[in-house]
Amino acid sequence: SHGSRSVFLSSGNSCQIQFADQKQEFNKRPTKISRRSLSRSISQSSTDSYGSAASYTDSSDDETSPRDKQQKNSKGNADFCIKNIKQADFGRREIEIAEQEMPALMALRKRAQGEKPLAGAKIVGCTHITAQTAVLMETLSALGAQCRWAACNIYSTQNEVAAALAEGGFSVFAWKGESEDDFWWCIDRCVNVEGWQPNMILDDGGDLTHWIYKKYPSMFKKIKGIVEESVTGVHRLYQLSKAGKLCVPAMNVNDSVTKQKFDNLYCCRESILDGLKRTTDVMFGGKQVVVCGYGEVGKGCCAALKAMGSIVYVTEIDPICALQACMDGFRLVKLNEVIRQVDIVITCTGNKNVVVREYMDRMKNGCIVCNMGHSNTEIDVASLRTPELTWERVRSQVDHVIWPDGKRIVLLAEGRLLNLSCSTVPTFVLSITATTQALALIELYNAPEGRYKQDVYLLPKKMDEYVASLHLPTFDAHLTELSDEQAKYLGLNKNGPFKPNYYRSAAA
Amino acid sequence: SHGSRSVFLSSGNSCQIQFADQKQEFNKRPTKISRRSLSRSISQSSTDSYGSAASYTDSSDDETSPRDKQQKNSKGNADFCIKNIKQADFGRREIEIAEQEMPALMALRKRAQGEKPLAGAKIVGCTHITAQTAVLMETLSALGAQCRWAACNIYSTQNEVAAALAEGGFSVFAWKGESEDDFWWCIDRCVNVEGWQPNMILDDGGDLTHWIYKKYPSMFKKIKGIVEESVTGVHRLYQLSKAGKLCVPAMNVNDSVTKQKFDNLYCCRESILDGLKRTTDVMFGGKQVVVCGYGEVGKGCCAALKAMGSIVYVTEIDPICALQACMDGFRLVKLNEVIRQVDIVITCTGNKNVVVREYMDRMKNGCIVCNMGHSNTEIDVASLRTPELTWERVRSQVDHVIWPDGKRIVLLAEGRLLNLSCSTVPTFVLSITATTQALALIELYNAPEGRYKQDVYLLPKKMDEYVASLHLPTFDAHLTELSDEQAKYLGLNKNGPFKPNYYRSAAA
Amino acid sequence: SHGSRSVFLSSGNSCQIQFADQKQEFNKRPTKISRRSLSRSISQSSTDSYGSAASYTDSSDDETSPRDKQQKNSKGNADFCIKNIKQADFGRREIEIAEQEMPALMALRKRAQGEKPLAGAKIVGCTHITAQTAVLMETLSALGAQCRWAACNIYSTQNEVAAALAEGGFSVFAWKGESEDDFWWCIDRCVNVEGWQPNMILDDGGDLTHWIYKKYPSMFKKIKGIVEESVTGVHRLYQLSKAGKLCVPAMNVNDSVTKQKFDNLYCCRESILDGLKRTTDVMFGGKQVVVCGYGEVGKGCCAALKAMGSIVYVTEIDPICALQACMDGFRLVKLNEVIRQVDIVITCTGNKNVVVREYMDRMKNGCIVCNMGHSNTEIDVASLRTPELTWERVRSQVDHVIWPDGKRIVLLAEGRLLNLSCSTVPTFVLSITATTQALALIELYNAPEGRYKQDVYLLPKKMDEYVASLHLPTFDAHLTELSDEQAKYLGLNKNGPFKPNYYRSAAA
Amino acid sequence: SHGSRSVFLSSGNSCQIQFADQKQEFNKRPTKISRRSLSRSISQSSTDSYGSAASYTDSSDDETSPRDKQQKNSKGNADFCIKNIKQADFGRREIEIAEQEMPALMALRKRAQGEKPLAGAKIVGCTHITAQTAVLMETLSALGAQCRWAACNIYSTQNEVAAALAEGGFSVFAWKGESEDDFWWCIDRCVNVEGWQPNMILDDGGDLTHWIYKKYPSMFKKIKGIVEESVTGVHRLYQLSKAGKLCVPAMNVNDSVTKQKFDNLYCCRESILDGLKRTTDVMFGGKQVVVCGYGEVGKGCCAALKAMGSIVYVTEIDPICALQACMDGFRLVKLNEVIRQVDIVITCTGNKNVVVREYMDRMKNGCIVCNMGHSNTEIDVASLRTPELTWERVRSQVDHVIWPDGKRIVLLAEGRLLNLSCSTVPTFVLSITATTQALALIELYNAPEGRYKQDVYLLPKKMDEYVASLHLPTFDAHLTELSDEQAKYLGLNKNGPFKPNYYRSAAA
Repeated sequence: SHGSRSVFLSSGNSCQIQFADQKQEFNKRPTKISRRSLSRSISQSSTDSYGSAASYTDSSDDETSPRDKQQKNSKGNADFCIKNIKQADFGRREIEIAEQEMPALMALRKRAQGEKPLAGAKIVGCTHITAQTAVLMETLSALGAQCRWAACNIYSTQNEVAAALAEGGFSVFAWKGESEDDFWWCIDRCVNVEGWQPNMILDDGGDLTHWIYKKYPSMFKKIKGIVEESVTGVHRLYQLSKAGKLCVPAMNVNDSVTKQKFDNLYCCRESILDGLKRTTDVMFGGKQVVVCGYGEVGKGCCAALKAMGSIVYVTEIDPICALQACMDGFRLVKLNEVIRQVDIVITCTGNKNVVVREYMDRMKNGCIVCNMGHSNTEIDVASLRTPELTWERVRSQVDHVIWPDGKRIVLLAEGRLLNLSCSTVPTFVLSITATTQALALIELYNAPEGRYKQDVYLLPKKMDEYVASLHLPTFDAHLTELSDEQAKYLGLNKNGPFKPNYYRSAAA
Repeated sequence: SHGSRSVFLSSGNSCQIQFADQKQEFNKRPTKISRRSLSRSISQSSTDSYGSAASYTDSSDDETSPRDKQQKNSKGNADFCIKNIKQADFGRREIEIAEQEMPALMALRKRAQGEKPLAGAKIVGCTHITAQTAVLMETLSALGAQCRWAACNIYSTQNEVAAALAEGGFSVFAWKGESEDDFWWCIDRCVNVEGWQPNMILDDGGDLTHWIYKKYPSMFKKIKGIVEESVTGVHRLYQLSKAGKLCVPAMNVNDSVTKQKFDNLYCCRESILDGLKRTTDVMFGGKQVVVCGYGEVGKGCCAALKAMGSIVYVTEIDPICALQACMDGFRLVKLNEVIRQVDIVITCTGNKNVVVREYMDRMKNGCIVCNMGHSNTEIDVASLRTPELTWERVRSQVDHVIWPDGKRIVLLAEGRLLNLSCSTVPTFVLSITATTQALALIELYNAPEGRYKQDVYLLPKKMDEYVASLHLPTFDAHLTELSDEQAKYLGLNKNGPFKPNYYRSAAA
Repeated sequence: SHGSRSVFLSSGNSCQIQFADQKQEFNKRPTKISRRSLSRSISQSSTDSYGSAASYTDSSDDETSPRDKQQKNSKGNADFCIKNIKQADFGRREIEIAEQEMPALMALRKRAQGEKPLAGAKIVGCTHITAQTAVLMETLSALGAQCRWAACNIYSTQNEVAAALAEGGFSVFAWKGESEDDFWWCIDRCVNVEGWQPNMILDDGGDLTHWIYKKYPSMFKKIKGIVEESVTGVHRLYQLSKAGKLCVPAMNVNDSVTKQKFDNLYCCRESILDGLKRTTDVMFGGKQVVVCGYGEVGKGCCAALKAMGSIVYVTEIDPICALQACMDGFRLVKLNEVIRQVDIVITCTGNKNVVVREYMDRMKNGCIVCNMGHSNTEIDVASLRTPELTWERVRSQVDHVIWPDGKRIVLLAEGRLLNLSCSTVPTFVLSITATTQALALIELYNAPEGRYKQDVYLLPKKMDEYVASLHLPTFDAHLTELSDEQAKYLGLNKNGPFKPNYYRSAAA
Repeated sequence: SHGSRSVFLSSGNSCQIQFADQKQEFNKRPTKISRRSLSRSISQSSTDSYGSAASYTDSSDDETSPRDKQQKNSKGNADFCIKNIKQADFGRREIEIAEQEMPALMALRKRAQGEKPLAGAKIVGCTHITAQTAVLMETLSALGAQCRWAACNIYSTQNEVAAALAEGGFSVFAWKGESEDDFWWCIDRCVNVEGWQPNMILDDGGDLTHWIYKKYPSMFKKIKGIVEESVTGVHRLYQLSKAGKLCVPAMNVNDSVTKQKFDNLYCCRESILDGLKRTTDVMFGGKQVVVCGYGEVGKGCCAALKAMGSIVYVTEIDPICALQACMDGFRLVKLNEVIRQVDIVITCTGNKNVVVREYMDRMKNGCIVCNMGHSNTEIDVASLRTPELTWERVRSQVDHVIWPDGKRIVLLAEGRLLNLSCSTVPTFVLSITATTQALALIELYNAPEGRYKQDVYLLPKKMDEYVASLHLPTFDAHLTELSDEQAKYLGLNKNGPFKPNYYRSAAA
């Protein structure tokens, strides 16, 4: 029940990248540099989550490194580094499809036809490079900004989208399957450019911010602010702030109410079904399921499975969430009470070692085990890597772990986040995130001197509400406006904010 | 969507009882003192809400005022003033029934067999006097306290329960149908007694607190704290605090997470159906319903009606709540878009004039209109009291308002709270409240010097969680305990609190 | 799961009225005539089901038998016998309210303004006399028929409605609280009248049909047909038919698809909640409930309680229904597996002795026991009438049965049908029945010679569909019409029937 | 709403294979033989439905026809013809996985360890050859039967499963991608074998039955019966029967109650979500969806989408089904009322031209169109193949059809059955079918002389119930048994059947 969770989630409480002990050098091939320094990127965002489309193009067996290629777009521009500019058309189609589920950004573009709220903005970005990000970048551009971009994950780039962006004139440095050295090289190419200096940072994980801190600290003089999307990145910013080293305002967009609801409740309500189906084709009707944790993620999972005819049990540590589970019609149990009888075990606690070997020893044959929660430590997968157990990979992301007596459990995504590994994040969810990022950039860029200090801020409630309102037309939803008399009665401004700033989502 | 709502709700933003301008004197018959000064008691808590049982005894046509009667209980005690001590047996049965749905208080009694956490406590209380309150009082007594009690509402007393309490030795001063003068006389009899002085106050609405402030301010020297349950009472305490006049610690139990969820979401999910059925026998299947406001109350109403096969529309002013309604599968409309077609209109906004005459003019014949919200101003009932419209009372709490062309709308409870007027509040919901009150009294009474200052406090998160945990056994619900390792990983104490203090319920 | 159930249900398999052994004589006071001969009327349709309204007028302590009164309506007509003609205005209001939820009959009236499909029909009826029946009778009259009416139940007559009908010119013979002698006297007054002879019979239970068979067999020469609504009545007709004694066509309207769905699934889905709330005020959230039987009634109960947050278990004897329960998300158990832990036990099997003393001995304190099923033998109530158990009537229809150790179970309606005893049947459900009756009368009355023989018929599928279609406008529902090409493709007539005659509802 | 639908569905009303006009000869390459004669196999059962697993092995670019290969299994047996015997291990794993969701067959195996109810049976089968079929075949073998098998579809064979079967000693003749000539060659190899003659037929589509009729009519002398699973095959059997040409008993297993419920309601409730997600990644929350047809399939689709937060509209032609939609909380509309506003259109009517070009012209940009219904004619796909529209294949099974103004609609599976093309049929659903087939074989094989004539029979109700009961242990579901007294009261045998034979499922 430990609540909030970013769709592109970092490793949570244990932030391994420390400023002091990192000595990345991008010109050498990485030798013994620990992979852990990229653990956020590697472990939490499976490449599988970036769509069936991407895989179509990966059969290209061109093994030349993009860094060694000479490419130009159709206008002769060569200020980018991607896999293959020829995939631009295919990427453009993916972007167009994404646009259809990102109405808020499209609306922002239209509203900005007159004014250009980002005119003069020079944004350097480091995020997953997907069709949805492309829609964001092209929106920022339509609002007046110049953009340079790198990937925050070595696997997640959709090459054809990167191609479409490069063809459209964006300076993009990213491809699927970068090495660690490539990773930092790309970031550096974004930042370290003759005659151009960023004045805004959009980061996802904090690596870009870190790089500038380490290599080009003087750039911060011109930077108006940082917008950060991930739990890890936010954590690092708070550390900087605590240490008195944060030298520009930063906005934590991870914790906005709207984004939280979509990342957790609404997204997981659908992706739990999708993730299980794609991996196991299991029928939900009549199945007994135990969901560990009744926060927002757990609530979404439970509601969906109940609706599909499963019998759902819940475990909780917090009596308030536990009582909610009861009132919602779920039997509250301890895991050991039901472990022998359940068909599916789902963790979403944010805790570690929730499903330990002892429990797995007692599961019945065919039991499916997966994680929808905070980190990949909820299921003690390590405990399964012992000689007496046999692992059998039956499909992508699906392992059978086989006991000496022949019993199998079906482990999904090796205990990593199911919905990132085995499902897709709906574009609409990403639209909420991207819109929040765009508005945060606008706010920081245009804020009058003094509104924001060198600190970490939450998105103002009013902008949070604006993100929501921009998505209402998708549903043909019509908001009621307060009359003057009613606004006075309630003590509210007619245009909001309608809730106090401390108002948080979710009885997680 | 303006969220929180006490089950026994005060008049909200417009607190009419002001300290300065009140000159109640209880020895005279009230002459021109406005009824409005009791508006909380009169208008928001219909007598109908106190159960079918109460009505059994009301046929007693004994018209003598209790103040003029001489009554003793079977042990010869006469320190009480109630309707009729002979109803004690009947009242005892009602109390026993209530005990069965108040497991938490019964558990508290058991745990207190050894220690008496309220030993020495002298509590003066002013609440609705119902079977549930009796369970609370007898629990406080079992925990070591002495109690004297008056009613916070002139209509809500269950006479037979008051009789049972008097028979059991409690000094109770209350009956159904008090005059205003009686009301204050009863309160005074609780407080102004030879050789006994309260050291704790349990109040619901603030009238008792007010009385002591006005008449016996010196009593506060010995009073350790005030526990207040209602929105109005809490509002008055904050006013006192702001004015620097609060001279003891006070605890606002209205805003505890558990209580809020039950008062609003869980209670209304059931009582919307119950209230509509008891008054109109309407079939829900296929009916078109518009629910104004998608806070916790609105969410409960919508979920219940959807489950019964109604087609539900929602109106909202707050885009975040609006988007939630969309994601939960409700069409978001403006009231005027659907007003001609809906069969039922339900308000739960906390706002005023949400359903105005213009809308009611356009409703279809037979449309049912009712209020589940914050105050009785959501429906502009006054606008219906015009000469061209005919009112016809068809059942208790049900009026047909008839247009010149014969069209009728069905107005429930004259726009007052439906679930208090036409349904009952489940004992289990009241159990949550009563347990919260008991724990707040224990906390304030036992708190070490200095923990609480002369201010208004929320119930500590840990006690909020304790209220929830005391109710889990009812559901045979088993909480999971953190291992040491897990607690450390999460940075939590194994016994809670599990959420930070600022954590609030409900994405209202 | 034994399926179909009439809202006004007879005693099922054991039809006690036998033609041979009955010698009713209505001029004498009944002496030793067994009450059993009226068991249908007495035991299955509690007076409580006829609404709050009826009770208003029952306080009239006029003890004179209606048979001894002289009453005329305002036009001087005296051909009726009811409680009190002065209640006509109040009854008229009840009828007008009922009209609003009986749209199909109102539509039939409109369509019949030109043609009068029942012109010349002389209908004698014997049904419950309620506001809904009044709407039916006035519809039949608008369609051209003359009507004379008696009650099929000695308790169920709404006196004020009977008054309104009498005032409107109908010859009604019925009042609440008839003796058995009164009962037959009223029926006889309907039939045995100078210068008027019925040509159609509308019966509910078969008593009227029986009376004519016994007393006035020659009347059948002119009678075109019988429409029968109850299980018992239908059973008796089949017996007659088998014995070769049925001398006119009869139509079984009990088993029409539309009527079955509404009587069972849709009605019970709502009335289970209503019946439990009105009697016990129980909160559903988190409660453990076992529902015995997963036919249509059980499905309705389960769906409603699940939606309210209860945890529902199901028992079944039929593996097909059992598998459906599993797929719908309910644990399938034997009663003894859960009897100690459940809070509510609901029977809806059509079987007998489903809940026996042994189970009740093991229920936990406060367990609620009620019956939604076929007969009042599902719960072995007789086994509770033993000396060691104490019965305490706590409310109307609510008994506490108390074990020597103090344990109480809460028995509702003494095991009779909960939704008839403790809830109301929604007018809309009765509208389906009444419309079915009206259409059956029209069909039989207008059928060409030879279409129907001296046999028992089901309502033709096309008329069944017509009943449904007449109710669609209530929901503003728009039916799609087949194109000529589509009708040809499907091999259907564009106007239906759309399903074969053998098509039955419901996988009960 | 035209109800029943086989999971492997034939082309419905238009059965093109006629006995008279077919002159298949398998030794020649097909020249002008219309593909239509295999339309059942080709058009309704997409290869995509046979699992992700199958595709792994298809990359083998061995282009040699299996007919030209020499293969032996490890025991030297060569009486089979499949793609590649080396894939046996992989196939075995797929079979083992399937076994876990086919508990009923596994239970049958156990029960048959003593008796062998199929001892002596020589079964020739022609069905889809998948892991589930393998479990069926190995069960038949365990029950005593000898089996020879061909595929009923040229695309649906899982090659690795065929390999595992061949390795296990079964004479299997099938591979993925057969030509028409191959198809009949394989069937012939099953039947036409030296020294072995079938005495039972298990058919899916009627092609095997047809072949024997044409080529080896004398074989019917020894054949005890035919078990047929598909709508088409059943249709052909009824034609034979009508024509007096059916010379053995045949059992129609398509219309068993249990099978129907699973093929339609339970299967589609899950596969509508799965099919839409896998193809479009659409988010369901808040989406407006219109479902055409409210039979079992429509009911399943509607329930699932409502639960996911979609707003669902329904169209119907049958007023009874229409009224059910209303009572279940769906607005009943004509397609043209909502076609401009909906995000998703789903057909499940069994009708043709339900979604015509005119409607598609008015859909909004991005609208998704798919078919869950009886045939691929529900959406008039042909009308989209006009010059002004551009088709763009964006993913497997997903086409964008683009209007001149840029509007796109998203057409899934070219209007073929979504859940067969873009989802998987859960093994549990196939388990119901396979168990039904096995029991029908046992019944026919063991029936005493004279029980079955040369006619088409439905599965006896008792065996239908037995299929259900064999699946209950999966859910740890415990059936209640009638006492002697209860059985007598209900007039039932304690072991069933519990419903009459005419009892059909589903208020489709």
